[in-house]
Amino acid sequence: MPTLAVIGGGQLARMMHAPATALGVKLQVLVEAADGSAGRAIPDSIVGMPKDDAAVQAVCAGADAVTFEHEHIPPSLFAAAGVEARPAQEALLYARNKLEMRRKLTEIGVPCPRWAQVTGPADFERFWASVGGGEVVAKTAVGGYDGKGVAIVSSYAQIEAWVNDPACGGVLLEEKVDFQRELAALVARRPSGQCVAWPVVETQQVGGVCDTVIAPAPELSEELAQQGEEIARQIATELGVTGVLAVEMFQAGQRLLVNELAMRPHNSGHWTIDGCATSQFEQHIRATLDLPLGPTEMTAPVSVMVNILGSDVPDPASHLAQVWESYPQAKVHLYGKEVRPDRKLGHVNATGSDLAQALQAARAAANLIMGRK
Amino acid sequence: MPTLAVIGGGQLARMMHAPATALGVKLQVLVEAADGSAGRAIPDSIVGMPKDDAAVQAVCAGADAVTFEHEHIPPSLFAAAGVEARPAQEALLYARNKLEMRRKLTEIGVPCPRWAQVTGPADFERFWASVGGGEVVAKTAVGGYDGKGVAIVSSYAQIEAWVNDPACGGVLLEEKVDFQRELAALVARRPSGQCVAWPVVETQQVGGVCDTVIAPAPELSEELAQQGEEIARQIATELGVTGVLAVEMFQAGQRLLVNELAMRPHNSGHWTIDGCATSQFEQHIRATLDLPLGPTEMTAPVSVMVNILGSDVPDPASHLAQVWESYPQAKVHLYGKEVRPDRKLGHVNATGSDLAQALQAARAAANLIMGRK
Repeated sequence: MPTLAVIGGGQLARMMHAPATALGVKLQVLVEAADGSAGRAIPDSIVGMPKDDAAVQAVCAGADAVTFEHEHIPPSLFAAAGVEARPAQEALLYARNKLEMRRKLTEIGVPCPRWAQVTGPADFERFWASVGGGEVVAKTAVGGYDGKGVAIVSSYAQIEAWVNDPACGGVLLEEKVDFQRELAALVARRPSGQCVAWPVVETQQVGGVCDTVIAPAPELSEELAQQGEEIARQIATELGVTGVLAVEMFQAGQRLLVNELAMRPHNSGHWTIDGCATSQFEQHIRATLDLPLGPTEMTAPVSVMVNILGSDVPDPASHLAQVWESYPQAKVHLYGKEVRPDRKLGHVNATGSDLAQALQAARAAANLIMGRK
Repeated sequence: MPTLAVIGGGQLARMMHAPATALGVKLQVLVEAADGSAGRAIPDSIVGMPKDDAAVQAVCAGADAVTFEHEHIPPSLFAAAGVEARPAQEALLYARNKLEMRRKLTEIGVPCPRWAQVTGPADFERFWASVGGGEVVAKTAVGGYDGKGVAIVSSYAQIEAWVNDPACGGVLLEEKVDFQRELAALVARRPSGQCVAWPVVETQQVGGVCDTVIAPAPELSEELAQQGEEIARQIATELGVTGVLAVEMFQAGQRLLVNELAMRPHNSGHWTIDGCATSQFEQHIRATLDLPLGPTEMTAPVSVMVNILGSDVPDPASHLAQVWESYPQAKVHLYGKEVRPDRKLGHVNATGSDLAQALQAARAAANLIMGRK
C-alpha cells in the first residue's frame, strides 16, 4: 500500500485522511497529542515531536515519503526520516525562514515589497529613510504564523528585542504596501516536475488571521490572474517545491507583490474540498507520492470559504441543526480541536453561481456555529 | 460531540468516516476485524459481532443513535443497543426479509413483479402456471446479497433445498420481468419526516453484481423519473425508514417495478460522493442524527460510477500512476479490503458534461486498476 508519513497533528493532517482513505494510501502521522485534530480522526497515529529522532523514524518506517503540515521542522528530522522529504529540506527552508525567502525571491526576480535585513539601528534608519519613513513592517525570520512575529513599527526601539533574540533567527523590514486587497495563488508540483495551478483567490484577513476566501478572486483581470499563477509556478519550480505551495500576495493597483509562502495545504485552499475537481489535500498526496496530478477546474462558478474561530460555544458541532435549517447547502468542516478563543476550529464552504448568496450562506453558517447572530 | 454508532465494518462504514470527520461527528463502529475496510480507516473501532450484546453495548455507549451498513442484524441487537436504531427494527425488517418486503409493498400499492411464497410443489406449480410457465425467479427470504440467494428456475426441484432450509427464512417466486434496464431511486429520510431524493440512476449488473451506475438515468422520461422518485419517497414514508433508502427497480416499457430495497448507503449511490452537492454518506449521517438534510443537485450534468472487483492485482492502489497518466480526472475510491476474486474492492467516479467520455474514463480507469486492458 502506498504510504505517506506526515509530520504534524493539526487540521491539515486531519483533512488529508479522507482522500488518503479513498485512494488506498496509508497515512502515518506524527501528532503532538493522541486526542488532537488529526489523532482523533486517523488510526495508529504516533505521539511525538519532530525533534525526537526515534518518533520520526517510527512514523517514517515503511513510508514512501515524508511530508509536513507545518514549517517548524528541525534540520535533524531530514536525516532521521530515512525517506525522501517532500518538500525537501532545501525547499522548505524558504517557507521556514523569511530572510532566506526574501533573498531567494529577489534573486529569481519575483516581485516583492522592498525589504532589508536589520541587525542594528543603522540598518533600520537606512531602510526606513529609503521607503520615505512612516510605518514599516517588521518580521522575525522564523517562528511566526497567523500574524505572530509580525509588527507595524516606526522606530528601531520597537524591534530591538527581536533583533537581540536568537530565537527570531534575524529580523527583516518590509515596506508597508498600500494594497487594495490580498490574493493567494495555489499550485501543486510533483518531484518529476508536473505543476498545476488552481484559480487565484481573494483572501480577507481579520486581525492577521484568514477569515474569508473567495474563488476565483472577483473582478481580477485575466492578465493579473495569469501573472499570479505564473509567479506561483515560477516559485514552485525554481525553489524545487514538491506538494502544495501557497503564495500569498498583495494586489497594489495592477502590481502583485509576494507576501508569504507556505509549502503545504493552506487555509487559502480549503475551498477546493467542495469547489474543485481535485482538492488541495488529494493533490498534496498525489504530488508527494509523485503521482500524476488532478484537474483543478472549479465545480461551480463561485466558491467561498469562511473560517470558524473559537468562541464561547463549547462544541461547534452542537449548532449543526440551526445552520442547516437555514443553510442546508453549507459544507461544514470541523477540526475536532479543543475550543480556545479565536483558535481556528473549522470552516464553512459554499458554492454556487451567485457570489453574494454564497458569501451570505458561508458567513451566516459560520456565525451560527460560533453562536453569533 | 454528536456520536453515531455503526454496525458493520465494510466499505459503507469506511466511507461514512470522511463526512463524519468533517462534521465533527464521532463514529463508533462495530467491525468484524480490526484490519478490515472500516477498521483500517476509523480509529477506536470495536471488534465484535452484532449478536454479541456486550460488543453492541460498548459501541452504542454514549451514542445518539445506532445505524447499520448491512441488513444482517439479529433482533436481539435492538434491545441491547439501548439507543434509537435508525432505521428502526420495524423498518429494517423489510430490507432483511424479502417475503415481508413483498407483502408490505403489495399492501401499500407499490408496483412489484408478480410474486408468491412457495412452501411446496403445489405453490410452485400454481405460480408457475399463472405467469405462463418458462423461467421464474426464486429468492430466499433472508441472507441473499449481490446475486446470492437468487436463482432462475423452471422446476420445483431446483428450489426444494432452499424451501427445506430454515436458514433461508422461506422462499418466494417472482415473475422473470422482461425489462429494458434496471434503475435505482435513492432517498434519505429523517425521523422527523423530511425526505429528499437524488436523481434516478441507471444501474448495470454483471453476474448479479453492480458494475456501472449512470446518473441521471439516460433518456429517462420526466414522467418515469418522477414516478421512480415518488415510489422511493412513498416506501420511505410508509415503511418509516430513517437514513438512506435505495430502491432497485426494473424498467419494463413505461412501467417501473420494484426489485429490491436497501436501508443504508448503497452501491447505486456511490456516484454522489463526487457528483452531488451532498453525498449519500453525509446524508445518512445527517438523517440518522435527525439533522436537516442537504441538497441533492448534481455538480455536473453527468456522473458515472464503475466498480473495481478483485483480480490478480495484489494491491489496487499500485496502479494509480497508470490510471492518472491517462485519466487524471478519475476519482478513485478504494476500500482497503483484502483482495479476493470478484470481491468489491473499490469504485471509480467520473463526472462531466459528456456521458460517453465520463463512461470511458471511469471504465478504463477501473480496468487499469484491475490490471485489465
